[in-house]
Amino acid sequence: RQYQNIVHFFVEDWFLSAALGIITAILSIGVDVAIEYLLHLRLHMFDYLNEVSVYSGFCYWVLHIGVCVTFAALFCSLVSKQAVGSGIPEVKVIISGFVLKNYLSLKTLIAKVIGLVFTLGGGLPVGKEGPFVHMGAIVASLLTKATTACRYNQFFSNEGREMEMLSSGCAVGIACTFSAPAGGVLYGIESTSKYFAVKNYWRSFFATTCSALVFRFAMAAIVPPHIGGTITAYYQTSFPNEVFLVEEIPLFVLLGVMCGLAGALFILVHRKIAMFMRTNRLFLAVFGKSPVAFTALVACFVAVVTYPEGIGKYLAGKLTFRETLADFLANCSFTLSNETGHGCKPELIAHWTAEGTIHPLLTLTCYLLVYFFLVAQCISLHVPAGIFVPSFVMGACGGRIMGEALAMWFPEGIRGAGNPQIYPGLYAVVGAAAYTGAVTHSLSIAVIVCETTGQLCALLPVLIALMIANAICSFLQPSIYESIILLKN
Amino acid sequence: RQYQNIVHFFVEDWFLSAALGIITAILSIGVDVAIEYLLHLRLHMFDYLNEVSVYSGFCYWVLHIGVCVTFAALFCSLVSKQAVGSGIPEVKVIISGFVLKNYLSLKTLIAKVIGLVFTLGGGLPVGKEGPFVHMGAIVASLLTKATTACRYNQFFSNEGREMEMLSSGCAVGIACTFSAPAGGVLYGIESTSKYFAVKNYWRSFFATTCSALVFRFAMAAIVPPHIGGTITAYYQTSFPNEVFLVEEIPLFVLLGVMCGLAGALFILVHRKIAMFMRTNRLFLAVFGKSPVAFTALVACFVAVVTYPEGIGKYLAGKLTFRETLADFLANCSFTLSNETGHGCKPELIAHWTAEGTIHPLLTLTCYLLVYFFLVAQCISLHVPAGIFVPSFVMGACGGRIMGEALAMWFPEGIRGAGNPQIYPGLYAVVGAAAYTGAVTHSLSIAVIVCETTGQLCALLPVLIALMIANAICSFLQPSIYESIILLKN
Repeated sequence: RQYQNIVHFFVEDWFLSAALGIITAILSIGVDVAIEYLLHLRLHMFDYLNEVSVYSGFCYWVLHIGVCVTFAALFCSLVSKQAVGSGIPEVKVIISGFVLKNYLSLKTLIAKVIGLVFTLGGGLPVGKEGPFVHMGAIVASLLTKATTACRYNQFFSNEGREMEMLSSGCAVGIACTFSAPAGGVLYGIESTSKYFAVKNYWRSFFATTCSALVFRFAMAAIVPPHIGGTITAYYQTSFPNEVFLVEEIPLFVLLGVMCGLAGALFILVHRKIAMFMRTNRLFLAVFGKSPVAFTALVACFVAVVTYPEGIGKYLAGKLTFRETLADFLANCSFTLSNETGHGCKPELIAHWTAEGTIHPLLTLTCYLLVYFFLVAQCISLHVPAGIFVPSFVMGACGGRIMGEALAMWFPEGIRGAGNPQIYPGLYAVVGAAAYTGAVTHSLSIAVIVCETTGQLCALLPVLIALMIANAICSFLQPSIYESIILLKN
Repeated sequence: RQYQNIVHFFVEDWFLSAALGIITAILSIGVDVAIEYLLHLRLHMFDYLNEVSVYSGFCYWVLHIGVCVTFAALFCSLVSKQAVGSGIPEVKVIISGFVLKNYLSLKTLIAKVIGLVFTLGGGLPVGKEGPFVHMGAIVASLLTKATTACRYNQFFSNEGREMEMLSSGCAVGIACTFSAPAGGVLYGIESTSKYFAVKNYWRSFFATTCSALVFRFAMAAIVPPHIGGTITAYYQTSFPNEVFLVEEIPLFVLLGVMCGLAGALFILVHRKIAMFMRTNRLFLAVFGKSPVAFTALVACFVAVVTYPEGIGKYLAGKLTFRETLADFLANCSFTLSNETGHGCKPELIAHWTAEGTIHPLLTLTCYLLVYFFLVAQCISLHVPAGIFVPSFVMGACGGRIMGEALAMWFPEGIRGAGNPQIYPGLYAVVGAAAYTGAVTHSLSIAVIVCETTGQLCALLPVLIALMIANAICSFLQPSIYESIILLKN
């Protein structure tokens, strides 16, 4: 009995959590590497063909996105339809006690992995954290099933335990996307459970720590250095510790209000689009039986819009979300000249001025407006698609616009020369957190943002704006996940 | 009805949380300032009298500690005996549903504030976070009572709501001590509830954000700059982002194991001391009726031991916990010479070498051993006394010893010259987190440590060591708070 208890303790408490963290981390590294290779291929082939002839460059650009996304959609619809979409709404429903068939099977895992690689490798503007949460939950569920099949039967026939593993799985999924072990645990708790058993939350911590460890080892050993930096999804910022003045707090409040309103609008737009696709007779007559065809069409449309030599000029079309986000969070200004010492490097500014021909505020605004609708459309497509990362990027863009405008207005800082300047990057961080918090109705995003940027100095403005954005959006709309659950029921 | 709901929403949800955060923050700033003034007085009077004559210096040193602590003990025993001790065990008991009379009254609050100021202002090696948690809980309870007395009666007669406010109160208490809004919320959840209603945790966040805001404003406006830095209790570290190598992870595991064992030993020693004071006949015959007298005696003993010209030489006796902790976390080495570029400033090293006559490893070991027993004794005295900060300091000291030993062994870093060196300060951070986590059985300390040091690069080693220390100590002993609850029942 004593001996059995010890076995039980080690197997259930430690081994399962560790296995969950490690397997999900390895999956995550594999997916990241594959996506990076596909995106590298897109960029280099395009540059090469563009030099041969502009026409072949354009064709390749559209084809790459179209083919990749169509393949992802086809694969999902053939192997497992359950792999489509974010996955977080379904996991929420399962954890609240419903049984959704096939959502946690190995087949769905495979479809989700392959689908995600080709969707993101193609370059569709969607995220990967929702699918990762789903993958983490599947791995957790498969591990629980595997142990139930073992002979320690009496120990593992516990339904509560299974839900806990699912919650750990969500935590690990987020921790892998953002390399944020503590924030991942909080997000897992917040987005999945209503009441949480506190004495068990160390299991989630242990699982996320294991996965963070695997990441470190992988970075140190396996990953080739030229893409090493990209794998961590870790947007290290470099603000000083005294990054804001007390006078700027009302500005953060304002940013919070705007992010809250924009978040509510985004949820509304997404719902209108989804409703249109479900109820419009003409749409149903054309695409009703072939969601894959519609997905392919939208993918081509995205390709045309982002084509770097066309409209893409105004949208930094060549850049991936990861790269635009790094630009937004950079600790320098797009608009101030380099003579003040606060300007960005010319390469960076070139992304946002179409090589010096357009004002950065114009490109930023275009980027925000176009992606606002593009993302709302793309997350309703027939591919695995997360909402978190796109929200993060849009929020950062909005914050950056405000920060740049302020930096132009007060080039020497609010208190005048000699005092701290205005850091547009800080506004981007705050905007990203507030907008994402509004769209997903979560507060743990504050911790995730700090872990992702690797700095804590922004915590207070982030918390203020996040709290306000969250309150406003909760008042106006349900969270995007609840909205999707309502749509599907 | 609609109108009432809106009033209810604003009053209950927003106003109460904000009031809780702001009132506790103001209390906390007041207490901090008062303690700093008392400690400044002690240091300057001692230096002045020591120059007049060594004898009068010694007398003043002993008298200051003795008088302050005796006054605190007397005040507590006259005004409210419930103010004695940490307060966290009692709050735990109250939140789990028992009714402890007078523990949440205004009288207890006053006794706790005055008692804490004089205990810490005297220089007893105890902490302030336990008392702050208690204060936060009292403020929360008083606010709930005040609103119940208003005419919105039907809304506030909810017991669950009261427990939630108490939990927010605990969170705010921790957030004030460490200026750690996110970690405070987690610690409040972890240390008080078994099951947690997730949808309400934004209230705790809002309350801690308000208190962090008040802190910032106070720093920017009220507090004189010469003690401004000390009020934040914010130990900003300055490690580079790549602060450890993969090879060092086994060392962090080792540190975690040692901290876990030491934590269990500390809980055992504290229980033996407390049992001795409760059951030994001789002790009861002498001090049974006058705990104040015993407290005064121990205070004088502490004063003699820390007397800076005597044994205190080996213990950095002049420094307060705040200052020793800042030394331990400093990003430099006590043992390496300044020629390597890694050595500390001579003033700092002078603290730990008795002006160059003793090796720092010796003073650090003395400090650890003496305070290990001194703290276990002092937290059982008849004064408000926290356990968290002393544990933090002892853990940092233990980690620093390991780090310094490693830095002496590998002065050029583990991989040899040209590669990253060993950062003894990182080991101090890890040790502090692991030891405190072991003693209190909490994991949120990982987030608190990161917020307190203002850097996230240490998160992974902290999580590893903390998890291991926690597992070992949970296996061997109950947490210090549960141990106190068991003793009192």
